[in-house]
Amino acid sequence: MANQPPQLLKGFRDFGPDKMSARLFMFEKIRQAFERFGFEPMDTPALEYAEVLAGKYGAEEKLMYRFTDAGERAVAMRYDLTVPLARFYASNKNDLPKPFKRYAIGPVWRADNPQKGRYREFYQCDVDVVGSASLLADAECIAAVATAIMALGVRNLSIRISNRMILGGIFSTIGISSAQALLVLRVVDKLDKISVKQAKAEVENLGIKAEISDQLFRYLETSFTDVDILQKTFQDKYWGSAVLSQGIKGVSEVYNALPGLGVKNATIDLALARGLDYYTGTVCEIALPDMPDFGSIAGGGRYDNLIGGIVGEKKQVPAVGMSIGIDRLLAVLDELGMQTSGLGGDVIVFNLEPELLQVYLTIVTELRASGLTCDFYYEADSLAKQFRYAEKKQIKLAVIVGADELKSGKVKVKNLSSRKQTTVKAGSLVGEIMKLL
Amino acid sequence: MANQPPQLLKGFRDFGPDKMSARLFMFEKIRQAFERFGFEPMDTPALEYAEVLAGKYGAEEKLMYRFTDAGERAVAMRYDLTVPLARFYASNKNDLPKPFKRYAIGPVWRADNPQKGRYREFYQCDVDVVGSASLLADAECIAAVATAIMALGVRNLSIRISNRMILGGIFSTIGISSAQALLVLRVVDKLDKISVKQAKAEVENLGIKAEISDQLFRYLETSFTDVDILQKTFQDKYWGSAVLSQGIKGVSEVYNALPGLGVKNATIDLALARGLDYYTGTVCEIALPDMPDFGSIAGGGRYDNLIGGIVGEKKQVPAVGMSIGIDRLLAVLDELGMQTSGLGGDVIVFNLEPELLQVYLTIVTELRASGLTCDFYYEADSLAKQFRYAEKKQIKLAVIVGADELKSGKVKVKNLSSRKQTTVKAGSLVGEIMKLL
Repeated sequence: MANQPPQLLKGFRDFGPDKMSARLFMFEKIRQAFERFGFEPMDTPALEYAEVLAGKYGAEEKLMYRFTDAGERAVAMRYDLTVPLARFYASNKNDLPKPFKRYAIGPVWRADNPQKGRYREFYQCDVDVVGSASLLADAECIAAVATAIMALGVRNLSIRISNRMILGGIFSTIGISSAQALLVLRVVDKLDKISVKQAKAEVENLGIKAEISDQLFRYLETSFTDVDILQKTFQDKYWGSAVLSQGIKGVSEVYNALPGLGVKNATIDLALARGLDYYTGTVCEIALPDMPDFGSIAGGGRYDNLIGGIVGEKKQVPAVGMSIGIDRLLAVLDELGMQTSGLGGDVIVFNLEPELLQVYLTIVTELRASGLTCDFYYEADSLAKQFRYAEKKQIKLAVIVGADELKSGKVKVKNLSSRKQTTVKAGSLVGEIMKLL
Repeated sequence: MANQPPQLLKGFRDFGPDKMSARLFMFEKIRQAFERFGFEPMDTPALEYAEVLAGKYGAEEKLMYRFTDAGERAVAMRYDLTVPLARFYASNKNDLPKPFKRYAIGPVWRADNPQKGRYREFYQCDVDVVGSASLLADAECIAAVATAIMALGVRNLSIRISNRMILGGIFSTIGISSAQALLVLRVVDKLDKISVKQAKAEVENLGIKAEISDQLFRYLETSFTDVDILQKTFQDKYWGSAVLSQGIKGVSEVYNALPGLGVKNATIDLALARGLDYYTGTVCEIALPDMPDFGSIAGGGRYDNLIGGIVGEKKQVPAVGMSIGIDRLLAVLDELGMQTSGLGGDVIVFNLEPELLQVYLTIVTELRASGLTCDFYYEADSLAKQFRYAEKKQIKLAVIVGADELKSGKVKVKNLSSRKQTTVKAGSLVGEIMKLL
């Protein structure tokens, strides 16, 4: 074997203790928030029959990791958490509560071109409600995700919501054909990156008349924080469109439920399109106004046609979900200097004299039994070396016991950042450590 | 698409809410125990270059999931957590604390023949100390794993330890050649399944003389719980074998450190061989005497030659680790009827009158904010249907509020298992719920 150490695959990451602690800390906070909302955890395998995933992701499907296994089965690695949810739901729906509220946090694999912040293995973090057409389900998904993000210490969220039927209704009412609609939608979707003027030009390039384009962007330029104003704006202008009126009613209902669910600062933004073609009703995007460069850190919507289609059912299976961009959120928390980690042990017991081993072990075990993380240095190395180990592990306090201290029933405790040293009674060590932490 | 629902791959599992809650509950307890011992979390990718894993697992290597990715790289799915640890250590050792104490809990993939309790995707759960030859590291790995299992409520553990050098030393001293040693080791390894008589016969079939076989099994038949007796047994019989004497000293040191680390009930069992050929010193196996049919639920040992070999270093990299068999442990806890799950929400707020939506939402959000898991039923369906949903999710209490109750400032709380109903003041609902849980 070569002397060069074996390499990590391109586009893949190791998570050493610092990164992994941050992730576990975040996952735990998110999990707790989701569970308080009545969402239950679920997981599916890393591998599926390729035919289960094939045809579900459009042109992106070429990024799927596919291969033939030793049993000649065509298999593929999990590409998202939604298609496996649909497969699970189809096989288990009679045993599941209705609606089925589940969350999932786990890795997916895409052979995408690796670039800054984009990896071939990354985590998705989803809440979904399957089997309910109630718009309260939409509001709960949004509120659960917003609450989870706030539980991480982020207070200032921008939550934009809309309903796909509104844009659809406006399109058909003002005379944009369904053939053009998807193309126009893609332009509208870019409104946070390009100016209204540019967007109008692009829409007109699609062959839409200027007067229609003018009309369209007039509706899209305003955000609403008052459902009454929204409804009045369109009241006289439903032009008989049932779709438009259903969209307006839908977004109003979601919007009105959010404050009761603890989300005070949503806005209705009719220009919110979201790229994915499969949304059928509510759409939502969450960003952090303090960090505009990071784009949206969570998003989702209602997708009533997807699950039925995936599982080959004729009947619609109503569903709504939201997804948190874990890696982006971690990067934001890091940038904001927020606590993202449980790393850094509480205490280390230094190893000064081999004859005192049993004393050290007893102290170590007592500290651990009281719930503290407590490390022990194995070798009676120089104190300098033991300090370096403790610092590398970001341990807060060191317990220092030599034969002399022991005789007088005393123990030294050193704060490893301030270097301040305290002498405490051996008998009350645990309590003293708790105070010093 | 066919009307038959899409299928799960053979040998793979979904984890629905009940199973997943049990797993997460267990992972969390184990994690906390490991972290109290100063082990830090780590994770590596699901995919590696095939050459990183190739040649590391002997004949079992054929079970590896291997394929060529879209970039023509030969890749393989993670087969265990140890080889990736070695790769990580080789690339990062200068930045890591020395010794490096890490734990990892994650899935691995093996295209094994699926059978009861054996899957192609299963979790491993490992603690390892890399970079220390101190036998205190061995004791800590054993104690961390034993403490984690006890933290799950299992009190009665059988912890058997030995040192590979003892068997090796006995073999060479009594005249079993190194060519025969591995074959004899495999027979000794079966001593918990076959009788000593059978084992002797098998050893003799390997061409070992009966008198040598007799001598061998005389040493293997006794367990020791006293290091002095162990040492006296061999004292006059080291026959000048440095290996044997080092093995006896080694197991004694580990054994003596365990009580101080909170592990009181280990025994020294010289017949403990453990199948894997790569152990070089301490070996350990943990089982539950109350559940003999389940075999060992954790095991491990010292493997000083493995990591250096994997990373192509000439120098030995001393290492020791223990591994918990997650699936087996879960099955045992289940069989013992122990709490294995965080499943079962605290409260649900029923939806009786659509006009009271905002009242319901306020109650729901208050309960969630106080840390309780609280579900809300979206539709104003029949109470019977709402009860069925709550029972399916094993929710403990239901909050029932109608217009009449609201007028009198009262709220009904129903225990969903005892069916007992209490009327409480709306203003003190959270406190009352806490009391009733």
